Amino acid sequence: MRLDAGCELEFEILEPTPMLLMLRPRSGEGQWVEAERYALQPRVPASEYADAWGNLCQRIVARPGRLHISTQVRVDTDDTIALAPGAPRTPVDQLPVEVIGFLLASRYAESDALADQARDVTAGATPGYDQVEAIRAWIHRSFEYRYGVSNESTSARDTIRMRKGVCRDFAHVGIALTRALGIPARYVAGYLHELEPMDLHAWFEAYVDGRWYTFDATQAGPRGGRVIIGYGRDALDVALATPFGDTKLDNMQAWVRAVPEAAG
Amino acid sequence: MRLDAGCELEFEILEPTPMLLMLRPRSGEGQWVEAERYALQPRVPASEYADAWGNLCQRIVARPGRLHISTQVRVDTDDTIALAPGAPRTPVDQLPVEVIGFLLASRYAESDALADQARDVTAGATPGYDQVEAIRAWIHRSFEYRYGVSNESTSARDTIRMRKGVCRDFAHVGIALTRALGIPARYVAGYLHELEPMDLHAWFEAYVDGRWYTFDATQAGPRGGRVIIGYGRDALDVALATPFGDTKLDNMQAWVRAVPEAAG
Amino acid sequence: MRLDAGCELEFEILEPTPMLLMLRPRSGEGQWVEAERYALQPRVPASEYADAWGNLCQRIVARPGRLHISTQVRVDTDDTIALAPGAPRTPVDQLPVEVIGFLLASRYAESDALADQARDVTAGATPGYDQVEAIRAWIHRSFEYRYGVSNESTSARDTIRMRKGVCRDFAHVGIALTRALGIPARYVAGYLHELEPMDLHAWFEAYVDGRWYTFDATQAGPRGGRVIIGYGRDALDVALATPFGDTKLDNMQAWVRAVPEAAG
Amino acid sequence: MRLDAGCELEFEILEPTPMLLMLRPRSGEGQWVEAERYALQPRVPASEYADAWGNLCQRIVARPGRLHISTQVRVDTDDTIALAPGAPRTPVDQLPVEVIGFLLASRYAESDALADQARDVTAGATPGYDQVEAIRAWIHRSFEYRYGVSNESTSARDTIRMRKGVCRDFAHVGIALTRALGIPARYVAGYLHELEPMDLHAWFEAYVDGRWYTFDATQAGPRGGRVIIGYGRDALDVALATPFGDTKLDNMQAWVRAVPEAAG
Repeated sequence: MRLDAGCELEFEILEPTPMLLMLRPRSGEGQWVEAERYALQPRVPASEYADAWGNLCQRIVARPGRLHISTQVRVDTDDTIALAPGAPRTPVDQLPVEVIGFLLASRYAESDALADQARDVTAGATPGYDQVEAIRAWIHRSFEYRYGVSNESTSARDTIRMRKGVCRDFAHVGIALTRALGIPARYVAGYLHELEPMDLHAWFEAYVDGRWYTFDATQAGPRGGRVIIGYGRDALDVALATPFGDTKLDNMQAWVRAVPEAAG
Repeated sequence: MRLDAGCELEFEILEPTPMLLMLRPRSGEGQWVEAERYALQPRVPASEYADAWGNLCQRIVARPGRLHISTQVRVDTDDTIALAPGAPRTPVDQLPVEVIGFLLASRYAESDALADQARDVTAGATPGYDQVEAIRAWIHRSFEYRYGVSNESTSARDTIRMRKGVCRDFAHVGIALTRALGIPARYVAGYLHELEPMDLHAWFEAYVDGRWYTFDATQAGPRGGRVIIGYGRDALDVALATPFGDTKLDNMQAWVRAVPEAAG
Repeated sequence: MRLDAGCELEFEILEPTPMLLMLRPRSGEGQWVEAERYALQPRVPASEYADAWGNLCQRIVARPGRLHISTQVRVDTDDTIALAPGAPRTPVDQLPVEVIGFLLASRYAESDALADQARDVTAGATPGYDQVEAIRAWIHRSFEYRYGVSNESTSARDTIRMRKGVCRDFAHVGIALTRALGIPARYVAGYLHELEPMDLHAWFEAYVDGRWYTFDATQAGPRGGRVIIGYGRDALDVALATPFGDTKLDNMQAWVRAVPEAAG
Repeated sequence: MRLDAGCELEFEILEPTPMLLMLRPRSGEGQWVEAERYALQPRVPASEYADAWGNLCQRIVARPGRLHISTQVRVDTDDTIALAPGAPRTPVDQLPVEVIGFLLASRYAESDALADQARDVTAGATPGYDQVEAIRAWIHRSFEYRYGVSNESTSARDTIRMRKGVCRDFAHVGIALTRALGIPARYVAGYLHELEPMDLHAWFEAYVDGRWYTFDATQAGPRGGRVIIGYGRDALDVALATPFGDTKLDNMQAWVRAVPEAAG
């Protein structure tokens, strides 16, 4: 499946403001970037680096006035996501080194405090994929998707108390409970085709039986058509824009469109 | 200054338990490992890797029964720590890439929620080193060092409310307030010569004027004689032992001794 | 200066052939990727990773038949390159860790065997930038730019013997002699605006006085307008296409154009 | 098998000389460092870093006069090496990213020029482990182990011409021919228990069927009891001592001893 996706951000900048951005999707397993565009208006010097998780990050100093950021990507991605009912948990001592960091608690995923909850939610499930799917289904079933109840400091525990939140919160709950079972989980920021309402999106992946699998507690069933912007331990590692100064985000819009068959 | 330092951990293991350990100090800037010993009793297969911050981590599967871990290191380290009154803040856009990750909030250091607090505490201080020293002095002056009031889930905000805690909590407050000013800060786990009472220790470093400086809010004044075990964003990244299973830590002891002049 | 650059490669593939490609320029210091396109015809599954030097590498299995690769990039880059006459050599013990690897001999740059040559060529020059410029000027003055005299196995020593070669060979000589003086040097593959005749290009960078400087022995004087595809110790690390099987490269074309002022 | 191993190096230093050292073995898969000692006499400031392959490297500035380096390690290592007759070649497109770099030619292993030779030597062998074993056996059978015929610039091609050399040369031939078959190979520097005559040693590993296997063309049959100091593409990446200045290596000695059963 080929998708065009992109987002527009409008900032009001009140003073010269250093900013970190994470808005350039990379090709990876299951995602191939065919074309890409990244525009800053006004044009300012920008540099780029890869963070500890391999995400491409951009660094600018925004000038006072309006800053318009527009990024766009054409990606070849999977129509469906892989499913693996019954796939076993990978024992901790056999996890690849680069996966181990996703096993521990993080800012928004207090897995250490959620062992009982995780056991309850997954009671009866085979250790591994089925446990994670039980977690995902439980969140989807028991939580209300609602804007405005959570904010930047809302963590998995907060969301479990409230039983409501947005994609970011659902992902944090999924991650925290999955890790509480000794299964690595990571946060994914990206786009989802035909998401309703359209917006930037977040979900999570769990590492079972030797590879990462996709889980999205906001959706009723498995769905492909995903464009990945970045990976991290939780939303902290994948902030799309981090200003260090007095700024105001006036507008943010995301979009995803299927590429017509005929397109080159 | 040459120091011998070490620690002993005794676990009761109830089932075969994968464990992650971070108990092997590395040579680095300002610390040279002359000799080192790492013993597991009973002996079990162990492997080692470097994590995202360069710390050496060990992986074992502990067998049911007693597990005794004993590590020891002889290090050549600085007698004093560098001070830099008046040293300016490094602008965010000039920070080295590997330092940027230490600028953002983390699990125990909710810097995003502490901007006002940080401004209050550092009112009147020159941006940079002097701000961090003001934070350090404020913690030392206003907080009570007390065991038993904090636990694994206590964060900088919790500690600021309570005004008491241990070295780990003091470090988290220092880190959170420092980052809230746009200054990178990292957590350091290690040993301190003549610490009273002797224990494993934690402090923090701040990046100003192009390098890292050491700050320790538990101490009245600057002190050298430090042996570093690991660096991280906060205590989460530098857990000395993480069991994945049913275990009990029965005993933990740390010690530091100056190496006699004559020693080879 | 904004440039559009790109290349076209046509392969004849005789059997299913794994290939490594390095054809996706990255934003970095002094180069900002505004837009980019990477097309494989026929479309085949492709994945991407960053190598030890941070270059983005692509991996495919080409199918028997024709394979057409077309990449294109719009870059904001410097009009001129930085010059630093008199800038001193950075002492080896003060080099950043990530630079040290560029100090040692490599496949095509046998610096260990060229100490005398390096001393001769730079006699009288101030240690540092001026030495490297003396090397660059000597190559430009003494070597003939000629196609067909060198091949994949030609090294700096070979080229010094022959006194002729292409951009790749000139860069290897520059790198080998620079390293022979204890100055780190790296190979750069990329595009140069208004290169005559137009082709993919290669030059080198040397690390003096705390940063990398650009040197191009194929040119009479300093020139900006460069688009960087990859960095490496020598050409071995920056091969644009490496097939593992029976293939034939039928055609390769590169182009660079200035972006009209009015373009968005 | 527990081994004590170590080496002594004596340099005569004529001027203040920056040096890179690689003399600190690390724990890894199949090797656990129980204790370790690293002494520089006279004591000079030293720092340490991990290179691109994960090896620990030390950096000093040696002072004029004598420099004595003495390192020692106690390691728990395998008694035997794994064998895998018939294990298949891992297709290039399925190699882990970190292995790919070991597939390409390098300074002393001109694999691109040795395809025919590799085919000849492995004629009739099953693609994978058996090919590498055929290469290893061919070297052992056809090459004479002799000191003094090779030097720092001797490459695999040179050694194939001469049919003689030392462990380093044998390893380079093995690596070059293995890579010429599209099988990743890496150079290992280390110690071998009961090596005759005792010295620092080198051998190679090949990546087949999803993991690295050990091959040593200097030995008649498979032998364990190995202590690994470092990995690299070839000897260039694993130089134990690299002085940048006027020095003389007066003496070098290596030793390996089995640890008595009773030792703690």
